[in-house]
Amino acid sequence: MGNKVAAVIGGGVIGGGWAARFLLNGWDVQIFDPDPQAERKVGEVLANARRSTPGLVDVVLPAEGKLTFHDTIEGAVDGAVWIQESVPEQLAIKHKTFAQIQGVCAPDAVIGSSTSGFKPSQLQEGAARPGQIIVAHPFNPVYLLPLIEVVPTAENTPAFLDGAEAILTSMGFYPLRVRKEIDAHIADRFLEAVWREALWLVKDGIATTEEIDNAIRYGFGIRWAQMGLFETYRVAGGEAGMKHFMAQFGPCLSWPWTKLMDVPEFTDELVDLIAGQSDAQSGAYSIRELERIRDNNLVSMMRALKAQDWGAGALMNAQEATLRAASPTGTRIDQMADVSTPLLTVHRAVPLDWTDYNGHMTEAKYLQVFGDATDRFMNMIGCDAEYIGAGGSYFTAETHIRHVDEALAGAVIAVRTQVLSGAGKKMHLFHELFEGERLLATGEHFLLHVNLETRRPSEPSAPVLAALERVADAHAALPSPKGVGRAVGQRP
Amino acid sequence: MGNKVAAVIGGGVIGGGWAARFLLNGWDVQIFDPDPQAERKVGEVLANARRSTPGLVDVVLPAEGKLTFHDTIEGAVDGAVWIQESVPEQLAIKHKTFAQIQGVCAPDAVIGSSTSGFKPSQLQEGAARPGQIIVAHPFNPVYLLPLIEVVPTAENTPAFLDGAEAILTSMGFYPLRVRKEIDAHIADRFLEAVWREALWLVKDGIATTEEIDNAIRYGFGIRWAQMGLFETYRVAGGEAGMKHFMAQFGPCLSWPWTKLMDVPEFTDELVDLIAGQSDAQSGAYSIRELERIRDNNLVSMMRALKAQDWGAGALMNAQEATLRAASPTGTRIDQMADVSTPLLTVHRAVPLDWTDYNGHMTEAKYLQVFGDATDRFMNMIGCDAEYIGAGGSYFTAETHIRHVDEALAGAVIAVRTQVLSGAGKKMHLFHELFEGERLLATGEHFLLHVNLETRRPSEPSAPVLAALERVADAHAALPSPKGVGRAVGQRP
Repeated sequence: MGNKVAAVIGGGVIGGGWAARFLLNGWDVQIFDPDPQAERKVGEVLANARRSTPGLVDVVLPAEGKLTFHDTIEGAVDGAVWIQESVPEQLAIKHKTFAQIQGVCAPDAVIGSSTSGFKPSQLQEGAARPGQIIVAHPFNPVYLLPLIEVVPTAENTPAFLDGAEAILTSMGFYPLRVRKEIDAHIADRFLEAVWREALWLVKDGIATTEEIDNAIRYGFGIRWAQMGLFETYRVAGGEAGMKHFMAQFGPCLSWPWTKLMDVPEFTDELVDLIAGQSDAQSGAYSIRELERIRDNNLVSMMRALKAQDWGAGALMNAQEATLRAASPTGTRIDQMADVSTPLLTVHRAVPLDWTDYNGHMTEAKYLQVFGDATDRFMNMIGCDAEYIGAGGSYFTAETHIRHVDEALAGAVIAVRTQVLSGAGKKMHLFHELFEGERLLATGEHFLLHVNLETRRPSEPSAPVLAALERVADAHAALPSPKGVGRAVGQRP
Repeated sequence: MGNKVAAVIGGGVIGGGWAARFLLNGWDVQIFDPDPQAERKVGEVLANARRSTPGLVDVVLPAEGKLTFHDTIEGAVDGAVWIQESVPEQLAIKHKTFAQIQGVCAPDAVIGSSTSGFKPSQLQEGAARPGQIIVAHPFNPVYLLPLIEVVPTAENTPAFLDGAEAILTSMGFYPLRVRKEIDAHIADRFLEAVWREALWLVKDGIATTEEIDNAIRYGFGIRWAQMGLFETYRVAGGEAGMKHFMAQFGPCLSWPWTKLMDVPEFTDELVDLIAGQSDAQSGAYSIRELERIRDNNLVSMMRALKAQDWGAGALMNAQEATLRAASPTGTRIDQMADVSTPLLTVHRAVPLDWTDYNGHMTEAKYLQVFGDATDRFMNMIGCDAEYIGAGGSYFTAETHIRHVDEALAGAVIAVRTQVLSGAGKKMHLFHELFEGERLLATGEHFLLHVNLETRRPSEPSAPVLAALERVADAHAALPSPKGVGRAVGQRP
């Protein structure tokens, strides 16, 4: 692809997002934007991108490229092999911008337009070289979302388009080539349809903006994050398949809420066309397989949101808090009459996102379980969210895990925690992980209480220390568990 | 809520999903469905639910309830405090079903209808006790998705509705009470709008079903999984807020693609109504905070999909494979001239989903990194996906981690791996995790080669063993790293 130099013409949220995507994939970026605030605005987008984009994949990205700001379009375009236009949505401005770009740019450079409103034939009107202009329509945040709608005309050669798409793909984009130009391309037609419907619902007092957002994100929104419209409906149709689904759902098109608009006639030809395309798209999987893929995806995304305490994940945390309050794992030491035996700190089912393709719990999740057990024990002795918020916590200094046996997705597992010692800043725990009576692993952990401001060891509060010492004293009478004090590879 | 007994009338995909949600939350479920295949169909939904629902939260759910099938509606309804109707979408059938239910059910039981097509006032027509009938419209898969549209009429008392919603919430549902009844409630109005638009696009040859699905799931679909329409647009509007966004976007409503239908007039009142509701919904956060919340969510969900190798995650894996092939971490031992120093096995940025609310890499992710390092080293010696597919692999038997220092989100980290010994079935590795020159942690791991069928120790293949021995021999000359052979809590 020659030298990795991109010009970004127009540096708002969208232009800044393009700049970030190029830079973080190792391209030099040359920006032109007459807005005196452009450098600050691009800098803010870039700050967001730098914290989120580099860790997306499990390998380091190329070294970040060089960012420069230019006073003229000519200066920004110099040497660029990709020129991305994100100026305001007015055709005259776009035409003038293209003329300036084409006055200086390489004839084989790609000129992509971020337009959502214009068709490529409109953009190419009157251009010196229409064949180097395409629509390359991104989605915000451009540094994260993969979709780029690539809309060409007959002026763009197949070789040119292949080259442009290869560049997009190399940066983690998904170029979706639109077969025929159409107003608003593809995705924005859906967004417009939903937006119109939403405006009616708000205006008519059916729902507020928040209720509408919840209707989306707690239902079909999370489905659409992993399968789109047709594959979701294919699964919903069940064993009888897409034709059956359409037979069920199609007639709804003539229901009252379609009175406002034309709808496509529901002919056999249309049903066959859609069912055939759906077979080509998803036919490699049975409905049963698609259901399980869908569920794996949903569980994984919902648990990802749970860790962020947002959306569906926040609902899950609320349900969990209620269940936890009624569970021994949610009980504090000062509420327990007897702490003389190892304490139940984890009691849960192995979730789908903790397992490999064979359904076995993966290695790293053993430390996840033991870390969770430590967190619960900390909560039990009063080192809870409030305490941590006030600046104290325990940090793990050292861990030893013995992997004894395997667990499958759905298995109900439990951790019992014995305090080997607890005094002053120090806490020495031994966790045993079971499925029923079967020992799966042990985790031995040495922790230090720290001051979260200095990140240095410090004394815990008196109540926390008292609770810890109460358990440590009670557990001192227990036998030393098998595996304590082992070094890795030591003979039994 | 009295005794936890639910009746499920109609046991298809939706009724089966309701049954699974109730059962897995500790309710007894009594099903009536005249379909001779009902028991098999419900069993299949329940099998899916049993593998995906119990692990959603990090605490064990109540013990599964008892499932029974009944020959009559009367038998199924006996003793139930919630009766869920999911019979075919024909009003006469629904009315007949409600009459039978109300002939025997408790007068304070909730009768919920899964209808998407009928308004509650239609359902209540001619009922003995209209006040106990509501729309409770779920989304497939009912055992995972939280949304239930609760649509009442004036016949339903506030106390009755509060009680019904408390039951739904206790099972992890999100009851969305719809303010006024309307055809198709809320979410399905959006689904219908998108479905109509999609049918046009397919019919007119603009895009195939697969291209449409990709336009959804690689772009706005994943955004809508965590924020809906309005909060997403609020963020897109940037610092200028929702009014600015609407000023920009609103005029598009009069663009050509709206020619097919009525659109709401874009009055100041409508703008103020929406901007005010958006403030109430999201005003607790600045735009900058919402951007970061959005990005945290997107990165977490995209990486969740990456682990499933699906959707946006499959694209990320494809990009990673290209980058990996050009990286030392993707190079095989037999392609390396010199293996005499510790090998680079991980080189990456700390992703947002690996960190706590303060941006520090969490404890469990240290084993994730070391596990990844082990996986890369296994790949380097030829124990790759193909080898594992043929039935051999290494399992970790024992792990020792020393936590030395912290890492923040975005930090570029690297693991260097030294082979302490490698012979026969045994492999003893020592990983050192660095950010630049700063040591963050060490991981000592003892692994055994296993036959994946018997899950018992076995000899590796000759080429794998030869590659391992080559590195072990070369590393035998290296000094023993600090921390090797330590037991937890041992004095230095």
